[in-house]
Amino acid sequence: MTAEPSAAPLIERHRATLDKALQAIRTREYWSPHPEHPKAYGDGSGLGPAEGKAAFEAVLGRRFELGPDGAEQPGTDDWTGGERSPYGIDLGVSYPHPDIDVLLPAMRAAMPSWRDAGPEARAAVCLEILARINARSHEYAHLVMHTTGQAFAMSFQAGGPHAQDRGLEAVAYAYEEQTRVPGTASWVKPQGKRDPLRLTTTFKAVPRGIALLVGCNTFPTWNGFPGLFASLATGNAVLVKPHPRAVLPLALTVRIARETLAEAGFAPDLVCLAAERPGEGLAKMLAVRPEIRIVDYTGSTAFGDWLETNARQAQVFTEKAGVNTVVIDSTGDYRGMLANLAFALSLYSGQMCTTPQNLLIPRTGIDTDAGHKSYDEVTTDLAAAVEGLLGDDARANALLGALVNPQVRERLDGAAALGKVVLASREVRHPDFPDAVVRTPVMVALDGSAPDSEAAYLSECFGPVSFAVAVDSTDAALDLLRRTVREQGAMTVGGYTTSAAVERALEEVCEEECAQLSLNLTGGVYVNQTAAFGDFHGSGGNPAANAALCDGAFVANRFRTVEVRRPA
Amino acid sequence: MTAEPSAAPLIERHRATLDKALQAIRTREYWSPHPEHPKAYGDGSGLGPAEGKAAFEAVLGRRFELGPDGAEQPGTDDWTGGERSPYGIDLGVSYPHPDIDVLLPAMRAAMPSWRDAGPEARAAVCLEILARINARSHEYAHLVMHTTGQAFAMSFQAGGPHAQDRGLEAVAYAYEEQTRVPGTASWVKPQGKRDPLRLTTTFKAVPRGIALLVGCNTFPTWNGFPGLFASLATGNAVLVKPHPRAVLPLALTVRIARETLAEAGFAPDLVCLAAERPGEGLAKMLAVRPEIRIVDYTGSTAFGDWLETNARQAQVFTEKAGVNTVVIDSTGDYRGMLANLAFALSLYSGQMCTTPQNLLIPRTGIDTDAGHKSYDEVTTDLAAAVEGLLGDDARANALLGALVNPQVRERLDGAAALGKVVLASREVRHPDFPDAVVRTPVMVALDGSAPDSEAAYLSECFGPVSFAVAVDSTDAALDLLRRTVREQGAMTVGGYTTSAAVERALEEVCEEECAQLSLNLTGGVYVNQTAAFGDFHGSGGNPAANAALCDGAFVANRFRTVEVRRPA
Repeated sequence: MTAEPSAAPLIERHRATLDKALQAIRTREYWSPHPEHPKAYGDGSGLGPAEGKAAFEAVLGRRFELGPDGAEQPGTDDWTGGERSPYGIDLGVSYPHPDIDVLLPAMRAAMPSWRDAGPEARAAVCLEILARINARSHEYAHLVMHTTGQAFAMSFQAGGPHAQDRGLEAVAYAYEEQTRVPGTASWVKPQGKRDPLRLTTTFKAVPRGIALLVGCNTFPTWNGFPGLFASLATGNAVLVKPHPRAVLPLALTVRIARETLAEAGFAPDLVCLAAERPGEGLAKMLAVRPEIRIVDYTGSTAFGDWLETNARQAQVFTEKAGVNTVVIDSTGDYRGMLANLAFALSLYSGQMCTTPQNLLIPRTGIDTDAGHKSYDEVTTDLAAAVEGLLGDDARANALLGALVNPQVRERLDGAAALGKVVLASREVRHPDFPDAVVRTPVMVALDGSAPDSEAAYLSECFGPVSFAVAVDSTDAALDLLRRTVREQGAMTVGGYTTSAAVERALEEVCEEECAQLSLNLTGGVYVNQTAAFGDFHGSGGNPAANAALCDGAFVANRFRTVEVRRPA
Repeated sequence: MTAEPSAAPLIERHRATLDKALQAIRTREYWSPHPEHPKAYGDGSGLGPAEGKAAFEAVLGRRFELGPDGAEQPGTDDWTGGERSPYGIDLGVSYPHPDIDVLLPAMRAAMPSWRDAGPEARAAVCLEILARINARSHEYAHLVMHTTGQAFAMSFQAGGPHAQDRGLEAVAYAYEEQTRVPGTASWVKPQGKRDPLRLTTTFKAVPRGIALLVGCNTFPTWNGFPGLFASLATGNAVLVKPHPRAVLPLALTVRIARETLAEAGFAPDLVCLAAERPGEGLAKMLAVRPEIRIVDYTGSTAFGDWLETNARQAQVFTEKAGVNTVVIDSTGDYRGMLANLAFALSLYSGQMCTTPQNLLIPRTGIDTDAGHKSYDEVTTDLAAAVEGLLGDDARANALLGALVNPQVRERLDGAAALGKVVLASREVRHPDFPDAVVRTPVMVALDGSAPDSEAAYLSECFGPVSFAVAVDSTDAALDLLRRTVREQGAMTVGGYTTSAAVERALEEVCEEECAQLSLNLTGGVYVNQTAAFGDFHGSGGNPAANAALCDGAFVANRFRTVEVRRPA
């Protein structure tokens, strides 16, 4: 701990990966150093399936020490916790509850040597943290599954390798941004016949302060890693305030980060956990502390807006609610479209911020490769596609996962009253977890011209609820799309059309309202999935989020550059 | 106007300059395509001195048409104006007063083709605007001189070539930021034995909306061009709301921009002027309009804070008040230090946001190459250096310029009451402009340990007023520096020391409090001067400004990237 920090071996270990990541954010071609298949792990390459499960079980019912040995997080005044898995298990894990007036000064004290280490060393340490997280992907899969309700396959991939990709992407952006200016420049200004003016100028990236990560319930790692690693890689300390129902995956992340930092000779308090007591409102209190200079948040619009309004001393990055639309004008692959949409609506029970909610379908029907289809045929066929996809309980469980909280279930139960149910939800029994609440999605038909339907389709109904909105025409669909994005925001927009003009009109709306568009997806890519390096998640330009994962704007204001000039 | 926009010839004309600018922001070596010597202009290379003066005189006492012919700015409901030169001339120019509800929709309507033109075409058009501004540097010199009170040489350089450099720098950053992702990417994800997933993804930079530039009185072009060109180059329309006392330089800028845009086939309403009636408070009204998505502002802390708090729908970039400090610990060039500081305190009568205000000097004196100097000797010698520099009236006029407004004069007159005057201000007569208010700077000695002095040195006293603050030691100076930057902000920090330890301690304070540091300047570079490409102006990390000119953060959030995915 008192040794001079030396990240040299880590730079050597990870520089090639960093370079590949830097290339990938420029080309935006597919790339990942983190295998997404569970079978890629084990046998010497990280924890295998059984080891991951055992590691998960070993933390249950105990205090979760953040470590490292001899350097536990300072300022613990109590232990708190009370997570219950959406699969019906009480996790029984308790976490240090911090005395903030002890913890924040300790975090500030940890920063100077981290700042002085420079962008490359910080990137290397971040990549080492990610590598250790990656090796424990099987463990993470269980932690994510039992805090979010995701099915195992998804919690493995989205909570593991894909989240790691997003973290790595943030590190690459942070490194690139900090190294756009040289460490030292020679400034020589000619002065005609007189001697030139000569200065030696140094430039140094300095952190803003302590960054607060306010985690979410559904994707604690995928949505949390970008902000965490962007802040850490730019020299800030990071205080992780997890969602009270999804502490475990981020607590393990904090533990791995602390251990890695300490081994590299840095103060482990650069990364700390702030677990809260029930109803404590710790995020609200922390977000306005003067020491907190960056906030990353994923969650409700109400609290996101509160943060943007009140945490004025901080850079605030928010992902909030939105209403995602799919415009269905026509298709050259009717079956492919139905299958693709059925999957998109079912995955994780529609509990993704990117899941489509409003399907806008002309009431006159649509032209397809299988002939003209009336509005009723489209909704009936789509309902059948979902029922087919989820007809088998094992498959349904593997796709749907469990409802993350009682509010989602209430919303699902209330959806039938909003209009005509064209696809009814059914209860699915989970063979291993009898208390898990597993439900197939509901689809409700609404009339886009009926004013009393607006309240339903113009607000987010988070969970396995979609609306088949009958509109007068594709033009009317485009108008409603525009209004929806402008007023409610959207993380994703989908479109199906065989018309070049409609395609261009969809693009035009998305360019003007700043939304990410997926066109004519009929295969194995879904509108609600984005990949690090290739895709931006959100645009940062409509009310659903004020930032995109991940671009220059996501990292550029997490640090500042201090210039020192001296006569040469 | 109805022709398809084609910026191809402009790209050809300016691509090489853009490439050099892109290189300069990376190397941060000295570079400028805009000669700073007045003699470089004329004889076929822009307006010469006489032509510039004639052009200035031709606009006086008239309506200022914004053009271009046949496409005057829409929504003019009146004419307004009332600028009076700090040199005592009524300019008599009136400007269109806009009906905002007509003007803003016209600006929005101008945006799509500008957005679709792409980053390279936008950069080329911006460079053409700058080239035309550059050719009229002699005209600008008079416009800036007679709105700001700068002396001619400074208004020529800072208001002309140096401001153009800052604008060009912003264009380079904007171009680079928008082109960090390719226009099209091919995304191919392997699927083991199955066919890979294939997408074609397009990325497009889209503007946020209408940008509002709120101009300042002292440096309308130098402080205005970065935001104007950063917003325009990223696809936004820009509404220029000048300071009521410094409309003319920005009105000419708007006219040149409109003319250039129209000639390149774009709508001139991409750049408009919003001149206000006396006391109208137009900036406050405009800043919260939903169409305004970006605000750039230089001015008082009170209004800057108001903008940051209230213009929540916009990205807000502010430069506000600060208190600039010079720590005087020791020097190896006593005469050089005195001469350098005397110049820095005198230039433009201390009316630069970067002018030093507090000189922190140990009460035990300092070691120098000319022997130990007591606190009194240092202040006396510095006062003598200022008096020597400004002893000749012609030289004094050429350095000082005129006081920009009556408030500066009141502050100067009130300074003597704050402590012991060690350098008295004297009135200088201007040979050409008898009504100009020209004053040499005042320096007041304050005791840094006396609580009743704090109110003086811990607030900005904008104008030709500096405080020689006696501190107990260099350590005490460092503490006061830290406190001053943290509480009041600072655009610049200076330091004089021969000690490596003190140098490092100064750097440490500046790194922690995020301030730009100039060390041991004794020659022809002054702490209050920064150059585009080489230097950052402000840090964006202390209360004096929330942005730096110019870095990635200054441009990255002025646009967003819209992604469209299609199966390949």
